[in-house]
Amino acid sequence: MRIARFSVREGSPAAGSVSFGIVEGDTAQPESMVVHALTGHPFGQPQPSGEVYRLQDVRLLSPMLPNKIVAVGRNYAAHAAELGHEVPDVPLTFFKPSTAVIGPTEAIAYPPFSSDVQHEAELAVVIGRMCREVPLERVPEVILGYTCANDVTARDVQQREGQWARAKGFDTSCPLGPWIETELDPSDLAITCTVNGELRQTGRTSLMVRSVAELIVHISEAMTLLPGDVVLTGTPAGVGPLHVGDEVAVSVEGIGTLANKVIKRG
Amino acid sequence: MRIARFSVREGSPAAGSVSFGIVEGDTAQPESMVVHALTGHPFGQPQPSGEVYRLQDVRLLSPMLPNKIVAVGRNYAAHAAELGHEVPDVPLTFFKPSTAVIGPTEAIAYPPFSSDVQHEAELAVVIGRMCREVPLERVPEVILGYTCANDVTARDVQQREGQWARAKGFDTSCPLGPWIETELDPSDLAITCTVNGELRQTGRTSLMVRSVAELIVHISEAMTLLPGDVVLTGTPAGVGPLHVGDEVAVSVEGIGTLANKVIKRG
Repeated sequence: MRIARFSVREGSPAAGSVSFGIVEGDTAQPESMVVHALTGHPFGQPQPSGEVYRLQDVRLLSPMLPNKIVAVGRNYAAHAAELGHEVPDVPLTFFKPSTAVIGPTEAIAYPPFSSDVQHEAELAVVIGRMCREVPLERVPEVILGYTCANDVTARDVQQREGQWARAKGFDTSCPLGPWIETELDPSDLAITCTVNGELRQTGRTSLMVRSVAELIVHISEAMTLLPGDVVLTGTPAGVGPLHVGDEVAVSVEGIGTLANKVIKRG
Repeated sequence: MRIARFSVREGSPAAGSVSFGIVEGDTAQPESMVVHALTGHPFGQPQPSGEVYRLQDVRLLSPMLPNKIVAVGRNYAAHAAELGHEVPDVPLTFFKPSTAVIGPTEAIAYPPFSSDVQHEAELAVVIGRMCREVPLERVPEVILGYTCANDVTARDVQQREGQWARAKGFDTSCPLGPWIETELDPSDLAITCTVNGELRQTGRTSLMVRSVAELIVHISEAMTLLPGDVVLTGTPAGVGPLHVGDEVAVSVEGIGTLANKVIKRG
């Protein structure tokens, strides 16, 4: 099942209203795809409202507004190496704030305090229930599904400042989408990132140093995860610069593609 | 004005309800203090509901449930030195998650993955309005007020892991309270921390490397701050270990005292 969050475009009686919804159809034929609106949130048993829209008539938003986003650095050996780092002995965890989240139809706004903003394509895990100290074998129970993420990073700021709140937490630095796929085995999925259609990053989730389940165990050992919280699982090799005017697209096998333009901050 | 958040204790018809409120009275005579409940939130013009409680009949909660907490490391030279660090060229910023927040009547739960949890007494700034790229001279307009914070830190985890999400983000690692003081000049306030009544940390906000206003400029250059967001401004020298059974108390001149017991995580 694909869970999206959307607003209804102008022209409909419901224009502007925001709902979760279940997306159906073949992504190869986008004009045939539809979204069945839900009443309320998608945790537990989703309740269809009965309203159905053509996907092309709605605006997809970030599929979740997370309370927190916990991200993991250097979780692919080839990416750690390309930046001159070792794989850390323990996972390197940091937060991105909810104010950084944008959806698939929004733009990454290049922040004026950086001159080296880079893409980092990632598999994102969306938490489905409140949990802490999750044992490895029970991790699947706390996961709602998976989406694509771009852990957009001001590389120069990251290198200059010891902790990464500004480098990885500026507004629009966390594109998420296009939807949450709830039926997916995350153990060996292709991840790619293109810029203006040109392939930049490529990897497979099987190359993660720590698996999705190991990361959830490690993070939830310290802190409660809430429904809607998002865990970013690290980026494969090939990170590189973005420029104003670019279109960057993150694809994860079995989910879809998250594409965002890069604009000057207004 | 002192803004608190509280729940009504058992025995009252309103038992269990949670409100913001305005606290009045002399802290030297706590039994005479009262809290005037507000309808809704305290941003803009607070609206008293007409209900008044004796302070001793309510349970004070964290005075805010922030969307995000942005904290600053090594902002007092003497504290940076005691841990063997230089003062950084640019402020070192990191996040604590909302799930770490507790109030003045809750306990710090010692996490099982650390054996060196330490106190860090800090002045906390509570944001009053949505803002980004705040110019220095307009910082006072975006501040609702100030409260006491304890940036509780698993020092061993902090030293072992490169980024601090787990070391400074575990559940109960962000006590806030007892209330928000809205009329306060933050430029030269005494900060102290006691453990079981024994003085451990002492400093003055005038010793900050970067002032409150400079920190807000720096953080808001990167990211939008929301009403209720909290900025922690760094800790003075004297940090040290906490043990199960301790009571740790953070006092900031002009605000009050935030005291929390330390318990074993249940």
